[in-house]
Amino acid sequence: MAVLFSDYLRYDFDAPQNSANDHLVFSKGHASPLLYALYKAAGAIDDEELLTFREFGSRLQGHPTPEIPWVDVATGSLGQGLPISVGIALAADRLERSDLRVWVLCGDSELAEGSMWEAFEQAGHAQLDNLIAIVDVNRLGQRGPTMHEWDTSSLAARAAACGWDVQEIDGHDLAAIDAAYAQAQGADRPAVIFARTKKGSGVAAVEDKENQHGKPLADPDAAIEELGGIRSLSVSVQSPPEPKPFEIATTAVERPSYEVGEKVATRGAYGDALAWIGSIDEKVVALDGEVGNSTYAERFAAKHPDRFFEMYIAEQQMVAAAVGMQTRGWKPFASSFGAFLSRAYDFVRMAAISNADLKLCGSHVGVSIGPDGPSQMALEDIASLRAVFDSVVLYPSDANQAVQLVDAMREHRGISYLRTTREATPVLYGPDDSFKIGGSRTLRSSGDDTVTLVGAGITLRECLSAADQLAGKGIAARVIDLYSVKPVDADALIAAATETGAMVTVEDHWPEGGIGETVAGVLADAGVGIKLERLAVTGRPGSGPPAALLAAAGIDADHVVAAVERITNAR
Amino acid sequence: MAVLFSDYLRYDFDAPQNSANDHLVFSKGHASPLLYALYKAAGAIDDEELLTFREFGSRLQGHPTPEIPWVDVATGSLGQGLPISVGIALAADRLERSDLRVWVLCGDSELAEGSMWEAFEQAGHAQLDNLIAIVDVNRLGQRGPTMHEWDTSSLAARAAACGWDVQEIDGHDLAAIDAAYAQAQGADRPAVIFARTKKGSGVAAVEDKENQHGKPLADPDAAIEELGGIRSLSVSVQSPPEPKPFEIATTAVERPSYEVGEKVATRGAYGDALAWIGSIDEKVVALDGEVGNSTYAERFAAKHPDRFFEMYIAEQQMVAAAVGMQTRGWKPFASSFGAFLSRAYDFVRMAAISNADLKLCGSHVGVSIGPDGPSQMALEDIASLRAVFDSVVLYPSDANQAVQLVDAMREHRGISYLRTTREATPVLYGPDDSFKIGGSRTLRSSGDDTVTLVGAGITLRECLSAADQLAGKGIAARVIDLYSVKPVDADALIAAATETGAMVTVEDHWPEGGIGETVAGVLADAGVGIKLERLAVTGRPGSGPPAALLAAAGIDADHVVAAVERITNAR
Repeated sequence: MAVLFSDYLRYDFDAPQNSANDHLVFSKGHASPLLYALYKAAGAIDDEELLTFREFGSRLQGHPTPEIPWVDVATGSLGQGLPISVGIALAADRLERSDLRVWVLCGDSELAEGSMWEAFEQAGHAQLDNLIAIVDVNRLGQRGPTMHEWDTSSLAARAAACGWDVQEIDGHDLAAIDAAYAQAQGADRPAVIFARTKKGSGVAAVEDKENQHGKPLADPDAAIEELGGIRSLSVSVQSPPEPKPFEIATTAVERPSYEVGEKVATRGAYGDALAWIGSIDEKVVALDGEVGNSTYAERFAAKHPDRFFEMYIAEQQMVAAAVGMQTRGWKPFASSFGAFLSRAYDFVRMAAISNADLKLCGSHVGVSIGPDGPSQMALEDIASLRAVFDSVVLYPSDANQAVQLVDAMREHRGISYLRTTREATPVLYGPDDSFKIGGSRTLRSSGDDTVTLVGAGITLRECLSAADQLAGKGIAARVIDLYSVKPVDADALIAAATETGAMVTVEDHWPEGGIGETVAGVLADAGVGIKLERLAVTGRPGSGPPAALLAAAGIDADHVVAAVERITNAR
Repeated sequence: MAVLFSDYLRYDFDAPQNSANDHLVFSKGHASPLLYALYKAAGAIDDEELLTFREFGSRLQGHPTPEIPWVDVATGSLGQGLPISVGIALAADRLERSDLRVWVLCGDSELAEGSMWEAFEQAGHAQLDNLIAIVDVNRLGQRGPTMHEWDTSSLAARAAACGWDVQEIDGHDLAAIDAAYAQAQGADRPAVIFARTKKGSGVAAVEDKENQHGKPLADPDAAIEELGGIRSLSVSVQSPPEPKPFEIATTAVERPSYEVGEKVATRGAYGDALAWIGSIDEKVVALDGEVGNSTYAERFAAKHPDRFFEMYIAEQQMVAAAVGMQTRGWKPFASSFGAFLSRAYDFVRMAAISNADLKLCGSHVGVSIGPDGPSQMALEDIASLRAVFDSVVLYPSDANQAVQLVDAMREHRGISYLRTTREATPVLYGPDDSFKIGGSRTLRSSGDDTVTLVGAGITLRECLSAADQLAGKGIAARVIDLYSVKPVDADALIAAATETGAMVTVEDHWPEGGIGETVAGVLADAGVGIKLERLAVTGRPGSGPPAALLAAAGIDADHVVAAVERITNAR
């Protein structure tokens, strides 16, 4: 890192927003003391701040986060920094034609994470010559020796097979490091330097010793003495060249719209909307996990091939690349089957710590996908993605609404998730109806309502059908489309519960953490003690036609009617 | 597959429970029609059943699941079959000294998943000579060409670097396949055969054509004609040899116990309990993700080194290996930081479809871990793991309870999760107090109680402290330890809410999908309309001392007291 800062890194610490700055990502986030010491040496922070390390309120946290202006993304969950850096490098190279370089410090332990090899694969395939990874091969993990210790041959062979420029050096040999950086930045492909080091080098009490990971030194004064005594090291980091301008043209394209009554799948509307916002907003980019013909991200790819990234079946790398791209101001939409986004859950969790602007779309949710069976059904996505800090969870019930919500996601800065349905369902709303994050829509309402039905997506259709059946039985039911599951329209729910005195929620999702519990929380917080029936998927689903699976799961119109009758009889 | 069934596989279809049977895992689960056709050829199912493919109620689902007795695990989320097979092979080789082989059919598209390379790495490291992977390199994914199409050189080089025996063959050349199997099963290491094939081979309408994935043929009769007409192919699969007995001795060891008032971290109790149940139950095995000195799985490793598996920093492979081991009757406990288990969420989701017996332990949960910062804090684990079909979520509040719950997990068949705390907290319960899945414990109770405080783990300590403060203010508070979050003790919650008229839940977790919403759901279902205050982590936490972080998050004793006063004033 000392050699990097003194001779290779191009970074203006006074202007972290300078788009021509190189990037430096500490994939081994636990090396934060080194990173902060580098900031001190570069004059970006002072001794006083350095000594606030890990204190409450300090931006110098245990692991780096973007609360520090020179940090792009939070690291500390190993195996994420390199795949995220692939996204930064892709954006700089493919979208911006920038000359910046992305430097990544990786640990050897984290090479056990498959996500690192997704990154090697993707960067090699894209021949990202602006990406340079340095692997600190110090032989020791937290608990003990790594799998390969100092034998870097297997790792080097794999990186080479992925199309990288590969070097293996002594990580304490300054001349070797210098030569390795020179070669790496001149390579016509991504470059990796496997640097064999001794953990705690230069301090005999800990050097290359087990059981010292993350522990304070017993005798820090002796260690300082061994390392040459107290000094005030400083380094002058070279500034980047002038940023190169680039331009992506926007075109005025009309918002997609559908006729009321037409049957359109919300996943199709997602594809149409994505292609549309790609035309009107040059910052929109899209990534997909090799299912663009199912998520309909392919409609964006057809219109905006230069801003579409095929990430193959590597959901972790897909989300990581999106997180990397947003560090440079791009607005990434990443899509796959909702079920398979669960593969990248740790990356979404960390993206929230990174305060990232990340838009996700999960298609093929719930049992209503039908014959493909449970492995393809997202039934935990609402729960898991609601439980992400400051996230937005949207579940459109028709195509016109889906288009508006995609546009709302474009404008919203933060982590948002759109849940789309495989099946074509009737268009309910006019093209000019407006929908917003945090809203809801009451579709049926009268002064005689004695129950409220709450659904979203495919179950809204079931609620409407149930309301029709109930009307035939003389029961007036209010129907609410809860398309914004988080944030949720608490006022509308509380008003409906109070006015109708009973409520049934219906969702194509497990009972835990979904629409039903969201509503239960709202009512409990408000102290509204009505009877709530929460219909959700019960039992382990199998294959079959959508209607049969909705019935078997207990979430079709007939089950809604039965629930209402249970409540009515109970009163 | 035809060559495998006729000459290599050793499997008694009449006795799938025979422990000497080979295993056959379709990692490319979407090739289910091939698998079911093989069952038909082997005489295991008949034509009539074969034609129920993907119908409602049929066990021949869109993707294979263990509802079929010859299927070990559900596949269909790509990249899982091979890592699970590593677990099967580890169990057979290391624990049982069995001669069986594990055959895995993989797709080329799924080699983009990092989890596949975690499996290559782990199997190579363990030199699993009983594992044979066949990769169907058909060049075409769902959406279009794969990254490498028919050029298997990069994949082959990587597999070789991981220590595998590697062959590249023409996947339509029967003699080449035969020779490849012979070499693979004779190899002294795991073997992979990259078999180049044409998708839809032999049917001109679809052969090697894009946009045909997962679609029915336009003219099936013509296709049947091209393939040689309707025939009733059958194959005689050889039986396995006699199973080899093996024995692991149990020893009567006393249950670990702690003195009331002693300060013990529940993660430490997990380690002690795991070592103990390893002694009394020979089926218990443990896996850890290179943090055994933090989760304390190392205490099991020290006692039972032959049944401990170090999976390095590869949580997907860790959970997959556990799923593989349980197919052979082992009881696997897999541990890491709770935050990092999120890396394996898709594997846990699929394990539920596999009806797997999987025990997970996540340590270092919540903001109370302190200075390491948010990347290390599990704050979404309750929500995400509750939203797994039929799961159990336990969150012990003291060490003696933790020991009992670990033992309850051992006895429970299904997916269970134990949430442990980093910090040492006072032992509350005696060693002979008993705790069960689905239970709760009321620690403070009187006829004068006007509010109920519900906590678990670290927040139970805060609730008890708040109750003391409230007593000083003349407010009697009931305190419930909700150590079983799923299933939850609804009766106790409803009774307490009804009797005390107000409730405060406190959790070191995001507000979504955790303890507060669980309780809200219970109360709403019962129509109990009291005022509920749900305290949970608000804001994005940073580093700092645990007490400061609990206060900043709004979940310490002072905040509980304030919440009670808000409710009291509101009444």
